[in-house]
Amino acid sequence: MENEKLLMTPGPTMLPPSVLEVMRRQIIHHRTKEFEETLNSLANNLKTIFQTKNSVMTFASSGTGVMESAIVNLFSPGDKVLSVSIGNFGDRFAQIAEAFQLDVVKLKYEWGQAAKVSDIKDILQKAGSENIKGILITHNETSTGVTNDIKAVAELTKNTDILLVVDAISSLGGLELKMDEWGIDCVVTGSQKALMAPPGLGFSALSDKAWAACDKSTMPKFYWDYKKYKKGLDGTGENPPFTPAITTMQAQAVALKLILEEGIENVYGRHKKLALATQAGIQSLGLELLANQENSSYIITAVKAPNGIDISKVIKTLNQKFNIMITGGQKELKGKIFRIGHCGFVSGPDLIKTFSALEMALSQEGYIFESGISLKAVQNQLKN
Amino acid sequence: MENEKLLMTPGPTMLPPSVLEVMRRQIIHHRTKEFEETLNSLANNLKTIFQTKNSVMTFASSGTGVMESAIVNLFSPGDKVLSVSIGNFGDRFAQIAEAFQLDVVKLKYEWGQAAKVSDIKDILQKAGSENIKGILITHNETSTGVTNDIKAVAELTKNTDILLVVDAISSLGGLELKMDEWGIDCVVTGSQKALMAPPGLGFSALSDKAWAACDKSTMPKFYWDYKKYKKGLDGTGENPPFTPAITTMQAQAVALKLILEEGIENVYGRHKKLALATQAGIQSLGLELLANQENSSYIITAVKAPNGIDISKVIKTLNQKFNIMITGGQKELKGKIFRIGHCGFVSGPDLIKTFSALEMALSQEGYIFESGISLKAVQNQLKN
Repeated sequence: MENEKLLMTPGPTMLPPSVLEVMRRQIIHHRTKEFEETLNSLANNLKTIFQTKNSVMTFASSGTGVMESAIVNLFSPGDKVLSVSIGNFGDRFAQIAEAFQLDVVKLKYEWGQAAKVSDIKDILQKAGSENIKGILITHNETSTGVTNDIKAVAELTKNTDILLVVDAISSLGGLELKMDEWGIDCVVTGSQKALMAPPGLGFSALSDKAWAACDKSTMPKFYWDYKKYKKGLDGTGENPPFTPAITTMQAQAVALKLILEEGIENVYGRHKKLALATQAGIQSLGLELLANQENSSYIITAVKAPNGIDISKVIKTLNQKFNIMITGGQKELKGKIFRIGHCGFVSGPDLIKTFSALEMALSQEGYIFESGISLKAVQNQLKN
Repeated sequence: MENEKLLMTPGPTMLPPSVLEVMRRQIIHHRTKEFEETLNSLANNLKTIFQTKNSVMTFASSGTGVMESAIVNLFSPGDKVLSVSIGNFGDRFAQIAEAFQLDVVKLKYEWGQAAKVSDIKDILQKAGSENIKGILITHNETSTGVTNDIKAVAELTKNTDILLVVDAISSLGGLELKMDEWGIDCVVTGSQKALMAPPGLGFSALSDKAWAACDKSTMPKFYWDYKKYKKGLDGTGENPPFTPAITTMQAQAVALKLILEEGIENVYGRHKKLALATQAGIQSLGLELLANQENSSYIITAVKAPNGIDISKVIKTLNQKFNIMITGGQKELKGKIFRIGHCGFVSGPDLIKTFSALEMALSQEGYIFESGISLKAVQNQLKN
């Protein structure tokens, strides 16, 4: 009598029933009026969620693919970029840039910390604004549960020629990100996190400044070529240029409608409330957040493993006994933290259920606390 | 009271009910035992269908993406390759190679013709075997309904250093292609044609010779990097390296089981029978195939539009009145041909239905023939 697994993971995230329903529909052809409705709906609603006037491109791709798309369209080999990394996915962006022979200046932080805007400012000033062509930065670092202050970084770049390229894969649709207003030049994201669709779609949007930069890029490209997509969106080429992931796009269109029905501000508010409730629950158990509370993500909460407890066993108990999936640390944080995702299609009751299971699993491993204390703390926060 | 649209198109193709069923399942995480079952099932069954001992890589991608993956992993800028093109998708392979600065020698045929192996032999002999690093060729050209004789081309390359790279996007699983036995070095395909899954997955498999060539490639790459996938498949890295298109892969696993349950030889036989029945139906109507009968594809049949008939109206009538989608010509064949796909999840009754609608639509446009004649011809061929 097993329930479906509750994923409290950083992605993929749970799919709403109406998203699942559209997935089971017989395939339709992509060069049809019927699919044009999906394309139009996606086009409009993606603009709203990206908070941009420009078109958002949809790729059949993982998140890593659209990160690559940004590099190969905006830059040329040898271009100097500043990579700001606070964890695994920040490092990945730098690795992609290096693979494509960019000259990567690395600003790295201890895992669990947020980037300091003053550090970025110093580097830009020392380099001179002519020198650094772009900044690569993660909005929400999934590996550490830390959010960077993108608005403040954009203040440094928006009246310069520097391109601000933001990996918003785990944040877009869950955390506020005002692309045009803040002055971000490129935002990339994926379908499988706050956007509540299955994995398999990557999205990218550009500022006018970034579109102009595409004209100067000498990097070889074909599949990721933004200009091919632009032609499709302008009506001067096929839209999209290649056979799209039809069903996943239909699912994404439904999921975006759900987000807009709830209201994007309400969705942000729900993510914040769930995050604060998670923090309260964690602290009531005497556990410690990995990040400072002011940088701790509203998407995923990273928690230090308590001394003397084998955290992998706790995670395993949640998974096997309670059918709830949370995750451990990646790379250098392996065995040292656990992470509770609260992103996308997640509700207060899901969180209560997770803390109930967490209490039982921690208790089983010998961790001492007052039974039910975290449920009370979570509940109190959810009431606010 | 509308039925679902019957797609007699070159792809996407209709999805079997059990494939649709798995699409509506709640998402599962990709780093789990449950998904490992999908990965293992795919790994084994893809090898069987590719007819190779080596691993088959799965990408979140359109078909064009895996074509690009072959170029960037097997070659380096400046490498000379021979592009053999008999239509739109052959041209695309050359365009990708050019975008990545390969030195592309082009062997092009009039649309509707198959490549002549003797022409390829001549070019290789004149160039000397040291000179040409690879051949890019389409197995089944969707735009013209023509199949190339890959076995014969492989005879020219298999005991040389030349890499034979085959775009089998519209053929694999529907047409015989014995990768290892024939000596093909790289086969790429997609999920949405004979493999009977939704679009969004690309696949690539390499010979040992091609794997060795990857070590020499200096082309920049990250998302498409075959070595990252190999590490995952060897157990020395994460498998797959990036968040996969989970649901589509589950659907693909179900679809491959269906193919193997039917028996791959029987599936090839069904495609052949449907193609021959289509040819018989077309000829009974006094219509002409675009290709010579011996090269005419078992995946899709291209038919010359009869003189004086606006073929776009015929296609529209099938679509709007009979809810059956066939397609017209691409690019230089626009308005000059129509194409009936009979690929993947298609049966004899689907074909009968299509010819019935075709007769009525042709008649409506004033084309003269004996009513029912094509149904009889198709039926007689299906009985064989």
